[in-house]
Amino acid sequence: MTWAEVPDLPSPGPGEVTLDVVATAVNRADLLQRQGFYPPPPGESDIIGLECSGRVAVVGPGVEGFAPGDEVCALLAGGGYATRVNVPAGQLLPVPAGVSLVDAAGLPEVACTVYSTVFERAELADGEVFLVHGGASGIGTFAIQAVRALRPAAVIAATAGSAEKLARCRELGANITISYRDEDFVARVREETGGHGADVILDNMGASYLERNVSLLAPDGRLVVIGLQGGIKGTLNLSALLPKRGSVHALSLRNRPAGQKARIVAGVRQHVWPLVAEGRIQPVIDRVLPISDVQAAHRIVEELGHVGKVILNVGG
Amino acid sequence: MTWAEVPDLPSPGPGEVTLDVVATAVNRADLLQRQGFYPPPPGESDIIGLECSGRVAVVGPGVEGFAPGDEVCALLAGGGYATRVNVPAGQLLPVPAGVSLVDAAGLPEVACTVYSTVFERAELADGEVFLVHGGASGIGTFAIQAVRALRPAAVIAATAGSAEKLARCRELGANITISYRDEDFVARVREETGGHGADVILDNMGASYLERNVSLLAPDGRLVVIGLQGGIKGTLNLSALLPKRGSVHALSLRNRPAGQKARIVAGVRQHVWPLVAEGRIQPVIDRVLPISDVQAAHRIVEELGHVGKVILNVGG
Repeated sequence: MTWAEVPDLPSPGPGEVTLDVVATAVNRADLLQRQGFYPPPPGESDIIGLECSGRVAVVGPGVEGFAPGDEVCALLAGGGYATRVNVPAGQLLPVPAGVSLVDAAGLPEVACTVYSTVFERAELADGEVFLVHGGASGIGTFAIQAVRALRPAAVIAATAGSAEKLARCRELGANITISYRDEDFVARVREETGGHGADVILDNMGASYLERNVSLLAPDGRLVVIGLQGGIKGTLNLSALLPKRGSVHALSLRNRPAGQKARIVAGVRQHVWPLVAEGRIQPVIDRVLPISDVQAAHRIVEELGHVGKVILNVGG
Repeated sequence: MTWAEVPDLPSPGPGEVTLDVVATAVNRADLLQRQGFYPPPPGESDIIGLECSGRVAVVGPGVEGFAPGDEVCALLAGGGYATRVNVPAGQLLPVPAGVSLVDAAGLPEVACTVYSTVFERAELADGEVFLVHGGASGIGTFAIQAVRALRPAAVIAATAGSAEKLARCRELGANITISYRDEDFVARVREETGGHGADVILDNMGASYLERNVSLLAPDGRLVVIGLQGGIKGTLNLSALLPKRGSVHALSLRNRPAGQKARIVAGVRQHVWPLVAEGRIQPVIDRVLPISDVQAAHRIVEELGHVGKVILNVGG
C-alpha cells in the first residue's frame, strides 16, 4: 500500500455528498482487497476503506438533512482510506453524542452488520441463546453490547482466542465465554444451556465451523455466516438441520443495493444510535494510528492482536 | 406391512378428539418409516400415516368447535393407516366445500407443508420466481396451484421426470417446465428469467441438488429443503451464497411441537382453505386404493408412477 495523489473526485451526484475524511477503520475485508481477493463492486472506488468519519464538504442535488460542516460517519462501498469520498446521503449517520469524531469512524460497519444480521435477518428474540464467534473483534464487541442492550434476557456466548479477550467479552455482557483454542464450543454451549444449543449464531469462519455450528443450532435456529476465514466450501448435514427446522444464511453488507443500505442505516439510526448516545453501547477501539502506519495496522488485524476496532487517522 | 387387530385407543386426552378414519394418503415419509429409517416422534403411534380424513367419534375435554359426526381431515404425527386415531383438535380441518371426504385425506400434509414453507418460512412475494422440484408430486401439484392463487404474478418453474408430468404442471399453473432427466434446470431457469434465477426454491432432493440450487438462487434468495431423496450431506458453497445474501432452510412438519402445528393449521384454514372451496386449488388425486392394496400403493409412490396423491380407503 502506498500513499499517493489521485485525481480529484467528481462533484457529488444526485443524492450524494462529498466528505472530507477525518478517520477510517480497518476491516478484514480490507486485507482481502489488498491481496486482490475482494475487488470492489462495479463502479465503486478501488481505494480501500468501507467506513469513515468526517465533515460534509459538498452537498449534491436533492440531499436533505445534511449541510456542509456537519460531522458524520458513513458506510462506504470503498474509498475510506482517501482524504475525500463521495457517498449516498442514505449511508450517512450523525456522530452519536459522547463519541469523538475519530472514534466514530469505527462504528458504521459493525453497527450496520450486526443490525442487519442479528436483528433483521435472524430476528433474535429476547431470552434466546446467541453465540458470536470472534467475540473480541470489532463485530463481536459491538454484537455483545447491542444484544445485551436490545435483548436484555438473551443468553450471550462468545468465543475468542485468549484469556484477555474472553475477559473483555464478559465485561461487555457475555454470559458464556469459550476459548476456541482449548475448548469445544459445541459441548460448552450445550452444557451451559441445558442441552438447548444456540438459537442464533453469528459466524466469521464459514466452512471450517459449518458442521459444528449446524450441530449446535437449537430448534428453529439460525446460523448467519458473515465471514469466510475458515474457507468457502463446507459440508452441510441436511439431516441434522431438517428435524430442527434450522437455517443457514450467508450475507455481506458491501454489495447490497443502495436502497438496502439506506434502509439498514435508517434502522441503525432509529434503534441502535440512541443506545450509543446513552453509553449503553460503546465503541471498542483497540488503537488509533496515523494513515501512514497503515501497514502496521493491517498486520495487527491480520495477526488478531487487537480487541475491537483499529482506527486510521486520515485527515484529522 | 400387515393389517392386524391392535388394542383399542385410549380415550382422547384434553384438547384431543378420536376420529373414525375414512381415508389416509401415502407420503414418501411412510416409505422410509416402513423401512425403519424414519421412526415416529417419541410418544406418537408407531402405525404409519401422517394425514387422514374421517368423522369425529369422541370429543375430549376442553375441545371446542367440533362435535361427534363432523366430517374433517387431519394432520397427524402417525396412525393414519388405522381405523381410529386420536389427534389434537388444533390439527383438524373441516372438509372444504366441493371436496369428497375420501379425497380430503390427501390435503392436510401438502397444504400445511406448502403453507409453512413457501409462504411462512420463505415469504414468497408476488412477482418473485418460484421453483419447485418434483412438480407433479403431491407437494408439487399443490404448491403450483397455491402459488398461482395466492401470488398471481409469481413466475412458477417446475421440474419433473416425464412429458406427461410436465404437461400437468403447466395445466396447474407453471410457467416454466423442465425435465430433470434431459435438461439442466439451472441453465433453463436462468435463461427464462433473464439471468435472475429463483427467489424461492422448494426442494425434495437435498444433498444431490444443493450446489445447483444454491448457484441458481437470486439475490436474497431462499432455498427450502423438505426432502432428502438425493442424500443428506451436501457441499455448501458459502462464497456463492454470501454475495447474494442467500439462505438454506431445511424443515419438516412431522416433529414440530403441537403449538406450531396448530398455528400452521389455523393459517391454512384462514388463507388456503377458501381457495380450495372456490375450486382455485383442487386436490390432485392419482388414484384411490383400498387399504388392503397398501403394498401396491407404496410401490407406485416408490417408483414415481403417480401424479399428485395416492389415497388409501381405510373405512369408507
